[in-house]
Amino acid sequence: MSLPNKKPQDSFTMMNEIVLPNDTNTLGNLMGGRLLHWMDICAAIAGQKHSNQIVVTASVDSVSFSESIKLGDVVTLQAYVTRAFRTSMEVFIEVFAENIPRGEKIKCNEAYYTFVALDSRHKPTPVPEITPVDENEKLKWEGALRRRQVRLVLAGRMKPDEATELKNLFL
Amino acid sequence: MSLPNKKPQDSFTMMNEIVLPNDTNTLGNLMGGRLLHWMDICAAIAGQKHSNQIVVTASVDSVSFSESIKLGDVVTLQAYVTRAFRTSMEVFIEVFAENIPRGEKIKCNEAYYTFVALDSRHKPTPVPEITPVDENEKLKWEGALRRRQVRLVLAGRMKPDEATELKNLFL
Amino acid sequence: MSLPNKKPQDSFTMMNEIVLPNDTNTLGNLMGGRLLHWMDICAAIAGQKHSNQIVVTASVDSVSFSESIKLGDVVTLQAYVTRAFRTSMEVFIEVFAENIPRGEKIKCNEAYYTFVALDSRHKPTPVPEITPVDENEKLKWEGALRRRQVRLVLAGRMKPDEATELKNLFL
Amino acid sequence: MSLPNKKPQDSFTMMNEIVLPNDTNTLGNLMGGRLLHWMDICAAIAGQKHSNQIVVTASVDSVSFSESIKLGDVVTLQAYVTRAFRTSMEVFIEVFAENIPRGEKIKCNEAYYTFVALDSRHKPTPVPEITPVDENEKLKWEGALRRRQVRLVLAGRMKPDEATELKNLFL
Amino acid sequence: MSLPNKKPQDSFTMMNEIVLPNDTNTLGNLMGGRLLHWMDICAAIAGQKHSNQIVVTASVDSVSFSESIKLGDVVTLQAYVTRAFRTSMEVFIEVFAENIPRGEKIKCNEAYYTFVALDSRHKPTPVPEITPVDENEKLKWEGALRRRQVRLVLAGRMKPDEATELKNLFL
Amino acid sequence: MSLPNKKPQDSFTMMNEIVLPNDTNTLGNLMGGRLLHWMDICAAIAGQKHSNQIVVTASVDSVSFSESIKLGDVVTLQAYVTRAFRTSMEVFIEVFAENIPRGEKIKCNEAYYTFVALDSRHKPTPVPEITPVDENEKLKWEGALRRRQVRLVLAGRMKPDEATELKNLFL
Repeated sequence: MSLPNKKPQDSFTMMNEIVLPNDTNTLGNLMGGRLLHWMDICAAIAGQKHSNQIVVTASVDSVSFSESIKLGDVVTLQAYVTRAFRTSMEVFIEVFAENIPRGEKIKCNEAYYTFVALDSRHKPTPVPEITPVDENEKLKWEGALRRRQVRLVLAGRMKPDEATELKNLFL
Repeated sequence: MSLPNKKPQDSFTMMNEIVLPNDTNTLGNLMGGRLLHWMDICAAIAGQKHSNQIVVTASVDSVSFSESIKLGDVVTLQAYVTRAFRTSMEVFIEVFAENIPRGEKIKCNEAYYTFVALDSRHKPTPVPEITPVDENEKLKWEGALRRRQVRLVLAGRMKPDEATELKNLFL
Repeated sequence: MSLPNKKPQDSFTMMNEIVLPNDTNTLGNLMGGRLLHWMDICAAIAGQKHSNQIVVTASVDSVSFSESIKLGDVVTLQAYVTRAFRTSMEVFIEVFAENIPRGEKIKCNEAYYTFVALDSRHKPTPVPEITPVDENEKLKWEGALRRRQVRLVLAGRMKPDEATELKNLFL
Repeated sequence: MSLPNKKPQDSFTMMNEIVLPNDTNTLGNLMGGRLLHWMDICAAIAGQKHSNQIVVTASVDSVSFSESIKLGDVVTLQAYVTRAFRTSMEVFIEVFAENIPRGEKIKCNEAYYTFVALDSRHKPTPVPEITPVDENEKLKWEGALRRRQVRLVLAGRMKPDEATELKNLFL
Repeated sequence: MSLPNKKPQDSFTMMNEIVLPNDTNTLGNLMGGRLLHWMDICAAIAGQKHSNQIVVTASVDSVSFSESIKLGDVVTLQAYVTRAFRTSMEVFIEVFAENIPRGEKIKCNEAYYTFVALDSRHKPTPVPEITPVDENEKLKWEGALRRRQVRLVLAGRMKPDEATELKNLFL
Repeated sequence: MSLPNKKPQDSFTMMNEIVLPNDTNTLGNLMGGRLLHWMDICAAIAGQKHSNQIVVTASVDSVSFSESIKLGDVVTLQAYVTRAFRTSMEVFIEVFAENIPRGEKIKCNEAYYTFVALDSRHKPTPVPEITPVDENEKLKWEGALRRRQVRLVLAGRMKPDEATELKNLFL
């Protein structure tokens, strides 16, 4: 029996955090590792909503930190599942920082996390497929295959010349 | 110069948290105080969004805890400003708990927090008024006056027989 | 077999905390939610001492935050059970803040929390009644009935015109 | 101008903590280091109350952990200043653990911490002397001199044969 | 005046952590985000040791989580700088988990973090170059150029066909 | 069947921590209790490595805090087992603080912790003996007997005149 498809919006998850002193380095900036931690929690909730299962982090794609987030800023994280691969899901997550008294809100980061769904015996278990709805969701859904090949190549579980989708990027 | 009115949705804030071991008592239930802490943070962000100022908690109305929230549950908090009173705002906040593997989601709590907006010299400063839009927002907006009288009476800053709105409840 | 009565002092509990950076907002003031969390823990210990059972928070009455508590202040919380209602207890809690180098100590807050005692199967279980001793304890004991009616009315479990004790406040 | 003497009770400080999951090792016992941290905070508050100054930990005497404290136990810490030495104070602290549902309360530890009082330029500053009142306080006050010699010998700042009070222990 | 070169070992940093309850998900496994946080701290210390400056996280390359780390395990993190690029450094970090009572120790993860060194005005500032010593360090040093191109392409700051080192992977 | 001896280096454990805001008092110095907590964790890992068992803290010898450690400093802790006594182990631990931008590294503290190894039924269980290798390890190994007598005398489990090793210090 196959599971009915779901839409990206079904797993949409939003988190807001205020940057507190212990989240910052001596420059008063949010530490990168702290943000990765919040992103993991937010993305994991999206993965749980999609799969209705416990999920564990399988990987995080490269993340760059170009904008500094300051003490007292409100951080908003937004995540949803872009595509499912049998027992795993790719989650796209965006991070925004807002200095409310100054009325400034910037996008700081985006990243892709992947999660594996586990059943009650802690074994990987199938998850619903994704039916993308709008144009942006379709682009994310298509790109997910290419990003998956990057992960498999980087993890040494796929040979670069088998990564058909990926090679096209460089040819 | 008066500030332009805002709508309740302009301050809408959502937070998701996963209940971790240190958030629970020895029964494995989320501790009431921990939830009050999360509610305060979520409501404060809503107050900041409305006022574009730093805000401090002025009061929390009574909260009852009828549903237990368990370790591993996803807690969703949703807050928005219901009405403004010159330099203070009433924020309504709802709490939902979700056991995702079981597909159960229940509403656990609701509460009203009030915040005062402070300017850069830490003095109370005016905030925009609220224009309620839908029926529910109008009801909350009207009730806010009555709830404010309860707070003033309870804080000993208004005599019960001056609390016109409130007296009607019991007559 | 009924349990022997207890006195308020039997459950007296004192907690001291130092306000650390992560407890404060960007103004360097203790966050309201953090204080509510400490108050819940202190009051719960008082409830445990009275009932000799695990207790869970049932409600907190409205709390107002009129005094700001600063980074580095010593916060003192003092709680005791004011009255018992079969399986629940009302706990009165006072909060003081002390700037020790300046020799300043002020009372910041007071609140009423209620707790339900649970037996080993997590079911509500009877608790001892309270015998108030001094004048102040007697006043708290008498007021507890009125405050209980407020809670029941606010929770929609009692009609306002049945709240005899409460109506007298407004008539 | 000398400071008026104070009594041990003037600095009496009590803290209650509930042992939460993150405070325990994999056996479900409170970790020794966590308890040392709580003891330091409680003793520092006592030192602040005595000196009305900011204080920093100068040393902790040896502590033994003979009783295990379990998850969910209520830990009570009680501290007071036993004797002052110009700019430093010895604080005696006792730790009790209570399993409330079982009605068991045991004394787990005791220790001596010493603190130095600092003025607003962060320099050591004189503190009031102690006038012990009851018999137990007098014994602690007398023993403080001997314990101070142990510390100075252990820190290499006093030769063993100058530690007159201490030598008597072994002769 | 150029800074004297340094060796990878000059920045070698080791961290040990015990997995506590709050670090784990409901399966009792270390959460991926928590590990990313620890890795960031350990790698940042290595970056500080190399540059003798405050450093901020610029990026983390993709990380996969193939091994689950359990409550009570001892996690060992080891990091060192592999190569410097004017004001930035690539740090290689390995993670091991050890179940000591069972005598099991496994390698769980490895990752590359990059950091930018900041001077006292919070501006990027040059860091010493790396002179790799042994064969393994030389391989890491050479690969660093290729990994840097991946980051620049992924961040949209280099066109794929300019990424000479990278293209060789797929051709 | 006796366990094969081990060397001090077999249990060598290193931890690095960055001092964050919540670890400091209002002077911006690392709190003594926080450091004692870190030392306990680092020393416990060393004890686990030596014994391949779960360990619990039995005691900590007196520790003095002569150097202040500042916000942002990197704290390095290094621990190893100096000697074993049937089911217990003495662990020596050193603490260094490093202000990396200033290029300053100082030794702040040293201490001796003792741990008891527990088997799977939580009962004390024998641990391997230590064979010291270099001169310094031999001195620590010899001194361990004297320090053990101090602990037993202080805990009231040995009479001062039976503490042969100890008496020699004062005669």
